[in-house]
Amino acid sequence: MSEQKPVVGIIMGSNSDWPTMKAAAAMLDDFGVPYEARVVSAHRTPDLMFEYAEQARERGLKAIIAGAGGAAHLPGMVAAKTTLPVLGVPVQSRALSGQDSLLSIVQMPKGIPVATFAIGEAGAANAGLFAVALLANDDAALADKLLAFRARQTQAVLDMKLD
Amino acid sequence: MSEQKPVVGIIMGSNSDWPTMKAAAAMLDDFGVPYEARVVSAHRTPDLMFEYAEQARERGLKAIIAGAGGAAHLPGMVAAKTTLPVLGVPVQSRALSGQDSLLSIVQMPKGIPVATFAIGEAGAANAGLFAVALLANDDAALADKLLAFRARQTQAVLDMKLD
Amino acid sequence: MSEQKPVVGIIMGSNSDWPTMKAAAAMLDDFGVPYEARVVSAHRTPDLMFEYAEQARERGLKAIIAGAGGAAHLPGMVAAKTTLPVLGVPVQSRALSGQDSLLSIVQMPKGIPVATFAIGEAGAANAGLFAVALLANDDAALADKLLAFRARQTQAVLDMKLD
Amino acid sequence: MSEQKPVVGIIMGSNSDWPTMKAAAAMLDDFGVPYEARVVSAHRTPDLMFEYAEQARERGLKAIIAGAGGAAHLPGMVAAKTTLPVLGVPVQSRALSGQDSLLSIVQMPKGIPVATFAIGEAGAANAGLFAVALLANDDAALADKLLAFRARQTQAVLDMKLD
Amino acid sequence: MSEQKPVVGIIMGSNSDWPTMKAAAAMLDDFGVPYEARVVSAHRTPDLMFEYAEQARERGLKAIIAGAGGAAHLPGMVAAKTTLPVLGVPVQSRALSGQDSLLSIVQMPKGIPVATFAIGEAGAANAGLFAVALLANDDAALADKLLAFRARQTQAVLDMKLD
Amino acid sequence: MSEQKPVVGIIMGSNSDWPTMKAAAAMLDDFGVPYEARVVSAHRTPDLMFEYAEQARERGLKAIIAGAGGAAHLPGMVAAKTTLPVLGVPVQSRALSGQDSLLSIVQMPKGIPVATFAIGEAGAANAGLFAVALLANDDAALADKLLAFRARQTQAVLDMKLD
Amino acid sequence: MSEQKPVVGIIMGSNSDWPTMKAAAAMLDDFGVPYEARVVSAHRTPDLMFEYAEQARERGLKAIIAGAGGAAHLPGMVAAKTTLPVLGVPVQSRALSGQDSLLSIVQMPKGIPVATFAIGEAGAANAGLFAVALLANDDAALADKLLAFRARQTQAVLDMKLD
Amino acid sequence: MSEQKPVVGIIMGSNSDWPTMKAAAAMLDDFGVPYEARVVSAHRTPDLMFEYAEQARERGLKAIIAGAGGAAHLPGMVAAKTTLPVLGVPVQSRALSGQDSLLSIVQMPKGIPVATFAIGEAGAANAGLFAVALLANDDAALADKLLAFRARQTQAVLDMKLD
Repeated sequence: MSEQKPVVGIIMGSNSDWPTMKAAAAMLDDFGVPYEARVVSAHRTPDLMFEYAEQARERGLKAIIAGAGGAAHLPGMVAAKTTLPVLGVPVQSRALSGQDSLLSIVQMPKGIPVATFAIGEAGAANAGLFAVALLANDDAALADKLLAFRARQTQAVLDMKLD
Repeated sequence: MSEQKPVVGIIMGSNSDWPTMKAAAAMLDDFGVPYEARVVSAHRTPDLMFEYAEQARERGLKAIIAGAGGAAHLPGMVAAKTTLPVLGVPVQSRALSGQDSLLSIVQMPKGIPVATFAIGEAGAANAGLFAVALLANDDAALADKLLAFRARQTQAVLDMKLD
Repeated sequence: MSEQKPVVGIIMGSNSDWPTMKAAAAMLDDFGVPYEARVVSAHRTPDLMFEYAEQARERGLKAIIAGAGGAAHLPGMVAAKTTLPVLGVPVQSRALSGQDSLLSIVQMPKGIPVATFAIGEAGAANAGLFAVALLANDDAALADKLLAFRARQTQAVLDMKLD
Repeated sequence: MSEQKPVVGIIMGSNSDWPTMKAAAAMLDDFGVPYEARVVSAHRTPDLMFEYAEQARERGLKAIIAGAGGAAHLPGMVAAKTTLPVLGVPVQSRALSGQDSLLSIVQMPKGIPVATFAIGEAGAANAGLFAVALLANDDAALADKLLAFRARQTQAVLDMKLD
Repeated sequence: MSEQKPVVGIIMGSNSDWPTMKAAAAMLDDFGVPYEARVVSAHRTPDLMFEYAEQARERGLKAIIAGAGGAAHLPGMVAAKTTLPVLGVPVQSRALSGQDSLLSIVQMPKGIPVATFAIGEAGAANAGLFAVALLANDDAALADKLLAFRARQTQAVLDMKLD
Repeated sequence: MSEQKPVVGIIMGSNSDWPTMKAAAAMLDDFGVPYEARVVSAHRTPDLMFEYAEQARERGLKAIIAGAGGAAHLPGMVAAKTTLPVLGVPVQSRALSGQDSLLSIVQMPKGIPVATFAIGEAGAANAGLFAVALLANDDAALADKLLAFRARQTQAVLDMKLD
Repeated sequence: MSEQKPVVGIIMGSNSDWPTMKAAAAMLDDFGVPYEARVVSAHRTPDLMFEYAEQARERGLKAIIAGAGGAAHLPGMVAAKTTLPVLGVPVQSRALSGQDSLLSIVQMPKGIPVATFAIGEAGAANAGLFAVALLANDDAALADKLLAFRARQTQAVLDMKLD
Repeated sequence: MSEQKPVVGIIMGSNSDWPTMKAAAAMLDDFGVPYEARVVSAHRTPDLMFEYAEQARERGLKAIIAGAGGAAHLPGMVAAKTTLPVLGVPVQSRALSGQDSLLSIVQMPKGIPVATFAIGEAGAANAGLFAVALLANDDAALADKLLAFRARQTQAVLDMKLD
């Protein structure tokens, strides 16, 4: 976690979601985007969740990445309490492999959007990357870093060998 | 809606859920259980929702029936803010027929229970009936009414004819 | 299992369901709610099941928690034979991960409600917790314990660290 | 319905299932197999259901066709109370199109079999046809009728035209 | 496998299905019902399959139990070529856990029934048990054995302990 | 249907599949590819199906398009009896919207391939188009027609207006 | 469509998607955000799609909203060719009700994010709203409009009556 | 990989797909069909993908086998840029077991066909086999090899023993 004032908040309902969500943190680290990461539970710390969402804009956050599994209410409820962009990551659940998490996050009603990403670690990484893209709209240096990231990614595929 | 002080609260995210949820109200009417019915939206009136949940017990409610569709967060978030029994009704959604509503309501994490019923009108009616059963634990007259309801229901099946 | 007269019955179709269902028992233990736990199979001991359901109220039970997997008929059939609140727990099945258990329990027809909880251990724990909530409606001490449980649970989340 | 002593029992949870289940009756009519058709509900007439199942063999039934929708417990519970062959028909349900009915009927635990057929009218017709096949094992005339039925069915396909 | 002339045929598309299908064989062994077990593949030995189905009745079989996974065509195609009762067992597939097998077997069109059982070993055992029930219709001794089996099964549940 | 010797066979289990399958015929008509269209049922005319498949190559067919719904065995069984390319079209079924048809067709075991297309009319049209592509490998004129078809299709999209 | 230089691009694979996607346009109209709306098909105009994506940033777009149904490749492929934020809307498909569209859009691999919204019109409206939220990060007036929109939306729920 | 000029191209989005896709290569090796195998990613090397698809015909390819998992866009996008037959293989994904991959590949819109095979290794092998069948239409020696392959496969099943 950087020492600069965070512009992205990464929150999750339990520290058991951290192995998934740290892929978002790793992506932000790669791009040098300052962020904070906290456990905030919709169901077990609802007041903290509301407070977090209400204060997010004034604290300088530009986006909130929220990961949750099962009846994953965290992203949608945070979105209900802030007008900041909220990015939802469905954590892979035990019985239903994240199908419940995905539907609980993506099927939001008209009026309160949550931008949803893939189930699990890939989704967490992409939420981080999307936060970068969103910030890059007004940050030419970051936009350049994104282009460089893409170029490296393309090269990595070009370099792949089939044994 | 009765004039007595309500002991059951029926809430739903939109008046478009009322055609489903009034099956719960009808059941409570049949048993003479006083209730209130209101629109309370998790996503569009989050503060009202919290306030409703926080005050429910002191206002004399014994159970809350919450209906919601899609990313149906209302029952689970109300449950997060009260220790009263919360009964969730998955409203049939347009694209996914209530499969999203069901999973979003039933797959709650350990610690915050929501008692979930069937998708749609049957589920709403049964939530009403379950509220009656719950109240009947300490109300012998209501317990008798439940037995009579069951007897009538059984008789209605026994009387059915196949053309 | 306590020595007091049980007010909650925990039943399941096989002792192979016990690893799941003991999460319900553990919750009742935590709250000091007396309960009994038994194997009662809808399909292999149907007469025992009917007898159990018929005698439950007079034996002083206030709620029945029934766990079952696959074509999980136990909760619904017990509910057909008693007017007590019946709480159903879908046990995670081998091939279909409990999707069959969930639908078989939750999709009850109008007239016979089963309050359904999440698939697996979380659902069993929450069924136990819901039974406590139901009893707490007429037991101020239990209601206070519930509030204390919630407070501890909230604190546990607040204390979580991300490595 | 024939006037001969029935050898097949067709049961269903409600007269609303009859439009589906009469396809089974029609098939038995075609083959001249005597049957009875009744409303027997697992959830609303559980005692009648047990009585029906217990007496079926001594009453001369050779098979029971049971149709049900949603949390379709009728076939499995009848099977729990008789050793006669039980044939289950998943009735198409409103929200989940019979996926719940199918899983609730087919996913029976080891020890209590229910022979399951397709969702809806085709399944009901096939349950009737399967009952005929089962009876034809010891009835050469019926076996011949089955062969003739198949021959006509084949011819009907051979005669189909594409406009 | 018994030395008597078989009355039940157990077939499967590959010897990799045998770990599942031998639960059917074990059940028939328990009841002393003579059977045969063979690999017959719908896709890789289609002519053998047709020959097997065509000769089944004259060879004295009273029922055919067919197990298959994935696009499980064996039960349905055997049923298309014989009027004997065909019992289908969906073998648990790798990617889709037998959901494909189940639908491919159970969703037969009107006119060609396949009696379908649960996914995997429980379904195989139950297909064996159902074959016994079918034969017991004209075999009082077998019917008695079925009753005894059920009684033992009930007792086994009654004897279960929860540690 | 053209008067030339057909090189593509379009088959389906019932004339009720023709409204879907004629989209394949229309595509072949557009490209001037001679074809035949027939009702051939896996379950109701199994011998005709085998005969059709066995004779297909010697009759000059280069591909077979087979449409089927529910437990859709036709494409896979035809593929088991010919080494010609078999193209499968899942017809939209009533209860399960073609999910059963799709899985029954696509999940073929190793060794017997069926090339599967989308559920319903789009899939039928694309099976026709794929047959053209397959023939175009050795027919330069047809390959040119395919390019022209694509160009027209592209232009049609470019010409679309949003009111 | 506004006359100002567009900052959001709304694209879709066919004009048949417009009834869904105009909910996104309507939202942008409400907020006075200039946008363009075009038909761009991944499969039928792939070169146009690449060109559109490549030029989007230099043309001044800040976000692209892409709607698609079935094997919905448009959002993901546009995302592969631009580093702008791409918002995907799963259009409700005929056979599978948009479940295919949703999975095809949301399950993107690590490295190329698509922010996904609910199936159908609600998702389109929310994609529009999310685009506003994204732009509001650097536009205080727009941020104020968002707050006002939320307030009106809350009030509309508070004003709802249950007949 | 053979030294002859390839007539089949096997492509996949990542070298992590190779364990699945080499079943296609192995099949082509068995038949002596020259092929190439490469990593080409729709999302990470979109330009290479377009180039690959555009040049495939002139480079002498007769078919392209494309494997992909998750939001599996590779087969469909290659099909959008070539009129060669494109064969799609859904690679088994982590959270959803390839259900996402399957729908993303098979549900192509009218006008751009992708021939889809089973999820995972069996599908890859069958795509290889289908490519052989397609080539065998104009190669009598290959057609003979296919017949021999089938005969060996049949014999292998006939030789299977059940322990």
